[in-house]
Amino acid sequence: MISVEEASRLVRATARPLPSETIALTAATGRVLQQPLYADRDFPPFNRVAMDGIALSFAAIAAGQTDFPIEATQLAGTAPQPLRNALAAIEIMTGAMLPPGTDVVVRYEDLEFHEANGQRIARVQVPPPAAGHNIHHQAADRQQGDLLLPAGTRLGPAEIAVAATVGAAVVPVARPLRVAVVSTGDELVELTQTPLPHQIRRSNAYMLRAALLEAGAEGEIFHFNDDQQTLRQGLPPLLAGFDALVLSGGVSKGQADFLPEILREVGVTQIFHEVQQRPGKPFWFGQQAGGAVVFALPGNPVSTFVNFYQYVRPWLRQCQQPQAVLPQLMAVLAASFAFKPPMTHFLPVRLEASPHGHLLAHPQPAGGSGDLASLLQCDGFLRLPPEQELFKAGDAFPLIRFREW
Amino acid sequence: MISVEEASRLVRATARPLPSETIALTAATGRVLQQPLYADRDFPPFNRVAMDGIALSFAAIAAGQTDFPIEATQLAGTAPQPLRNALAAIEIMTGAMLPPGTDVVVRYEDLEFHEANGQRIARVQVPPPAAGHNIHHQAADRQQGDLLLPAGTRLGPAEIAVAATVGAAVVPVARPLRVAVVSTGDELVELTQTPLPHQIRRSNAYMLRAALLEAGAEGEIFHFNDDQQTLRQGLPPLLAGFDALVLSGGVSKGQADFLPEILREVGVTQIFHEVQQRPGKPFWFGQQAGGAVVFALPGNPVSTFVNFYQYVRPWLRQCQQPQAVLPQLMAVLAASFAFKPPMTHFLPVRLEASPHGHLLAHPQPAGGSGDLASLLQCDGFLRLPPEQELFKAGDAFPLIRFREW
Repeated sequence: MISVEEASRLVRATARPLPSETIALTAATGRVLQQPLYADRDFPPFNRVAMDGIALSFAAIAAGQTDFPIEATQLAGTAPQPLRNALAAIEIMTGAMLPPGTDVVVRYEDLEFHEANGQRIARVQVPPPAAGHNIHHQAADRQQGDLLLPAGTRLGPAEIAVAATVGAAVVPVARPLRVAVVSTGDELVELTQTPLPHQIRRSNAYMLRAALLEAGAEGEIFHFNDDQQTLRQGLPPLLAGFDALVLSGGVSKGQADFLPEILREVGVTQIFHEVQQRPGKPFWFGQQAGGAVVFALPGNPVSTFVNFYQYVRPWLRQCQQPQAVLPQLMAVLAASFAFKPPMTHFLPVRLEASPHGHLLAHPQPAGGSGDLASLLQCDGFLRLPPEQELFKAGDAFPLIRFREW
Repeated sequence: MISVEEASRLVRATARPLPSETIALTAATGRVLQQPLYADRDFPPFNRVAMDGIALSFAAIAAGQTDFPIEATQLAGTAPQPLRNALAAIEIMTGAMLPPGTDVVVRYEDLEFHEANGQRIARVQVPPPAAGHNIHHQAADRQQGDLLLPAGTRLGPAEIAVAATVGAAVVPVARPLRVAVVSTGDELVELTQTPLPHQIRRSNAYMLRAALLEAGAEGEIFHFNDDQQTLRQGLPPLLAGFDALVLSGGVSKGQADFLPEILREVGVTQIFHEVQQRPGKPFWFGQQAGGAVVFALPGNPVSTFVNFYQYVRPWLRQCQQPQAVLPQLMAVLAASFAFKPPMTHFLPVRLEASPHGHLLAHPQPAGGSGDLASLLQCDGFLRLPPEQELFKAGDAFPLIRFREW
């Protein structure tokens, strides 16, 4: 039986970059850029006035002048008019281009205005310390041609704004991953059906589809009964049409658990079966030569859940952003906890933000891997290593978070 | 000028709960439930077999019996058949209903099988410690009628699974917030246009729309030039048609910044103008009597960004989940930092996950509130309080995070 680390490595090794599609920037939030984006102009593209006030020549200030007649007014978005009289000033607004002949801006807060002979005059109360004050200089942040967003960048609000600035009305992004979610199990009935006493409604498939959506992938739900012929016929079209299959149920030791055998028959090569972990040990993983990968997860809901977040989600991210190195969040155990079997234990925890900047992880009581409802009180799992038996309060362990605040 | 705390309180006080709409569970990921969901059956609904193996009577084990003839096989999803002979066993699969007459399950791993006179016999190698072993008992997790999901719950993957289990094929959820994003400023041209030397493309509106989407709201973009008549006519239909308006630009001291005046004219009452913070001081906030709220944010991109995450996003969440108390994440300053003005400072930071369970916040150099590109290197802002001037490495401060990993 292999370790969690080895299983994770083998899963990640099957990730492949996704093909591109070009979409409108307004549809691209959360998507991953496929080509680098460069600055088409300097950032800022001109000496940009950073405060409302007056623009003038610092030489006049340095010479002790305090009163400046207003020669003109210049709003943002208008072509700049040069200062004609070096001892005068132009009233100017944030976002405007600095007028030729000026090199400093004094903000309204540091000015007083009066009129003399019908001429509006600004008196400088607090002189600026140097030329360039209150000016956001051309190319101060980025130069034309600079790389702004490398390929592989996830487009959040800041990246969308930068793309808008350079006029990227459409962007090449990775197409969404397409995942078939397959539930198996004769005890499972549809959501809309009333189950017989020995039946339950399927829930894992809906959980997996929701988790895929949150991870930026598309999930489509299929159901097969525990019947070899049905699976033998049903799986090949899914292998051909999807990037990955995520199955739940059918991989433990039971008589109806012939899924690994059928998967081999339809051309999926086993990469591993069973991982040294609890819950979720019977996890089976394989890949069709050069094609879809298959995550066959055990059907107990907590096992399905843990395996999704430990293996499937990192695989999705690796496909979406092959270059990204995602940081491993750690959390501090809030109460000591013992787990003796020599396997990695995924401990359900509720998180608390400590005033000292820690994430505190409170172990949550759970009724075993069948206790779906226990997940409602949890924010994630701590991944407790197999070589330890006692996990002490105050120690930090890797956190798998499935709920953000 | 009011403090950040007071401004935040005044903003949150205007939040109103959203009307309901009923949608398919498959469309409800990330939405907020509007009515409580109860258990329609016990969880589990029957004594559920938790391991593949055999079901038998513990009395026989206690009496020292080790060999059990297999009377029948029962898969998950079939009606249970009672054990006829109390000294025999039923071969049974995970997920099946425990057969009447049995009270314990021995898993395959603890059994060996052989045949005698054509009869399949299971030999118990590791006897179970007590009756009830490997059985997930009816109602162990939840009882019929128990509250599973209170109104106001955000529907993540675990909640979607629980809703599926109780047959909630459609669910009442809060309708999405509708927000009009309004950019102003004559210097701004459309994404698809080539700007003149003194113009720039609009980016704040796209940033705000993306940030709204990430927060689960709908954003629609409008643009008005800095012209009083245009604004006077353009704003009332937006106030009538949206829950909130988020404007950027037009609220500082400049001659073209008549937005507060126009807003008053069209019936929006000012709640505050200017907050003791940097960046983002000129923030104006108001509300139409019983109607839309108006966030008029300063137009410098970093100011817009900070104000969105400090004020707009919490307001959205308060409308979506009025009962939720969201924890305040804290992060540890990785390098000392000085900021003297007596105002709250939003310090751009890059986050690092420490091996000890801290979030470390590295201050990022930025070219001021106009430096949009500096946000690309940041994950959030630390909110540094006004009464301090020196912020020491190792101290923890409230974190506003705008990028998840």
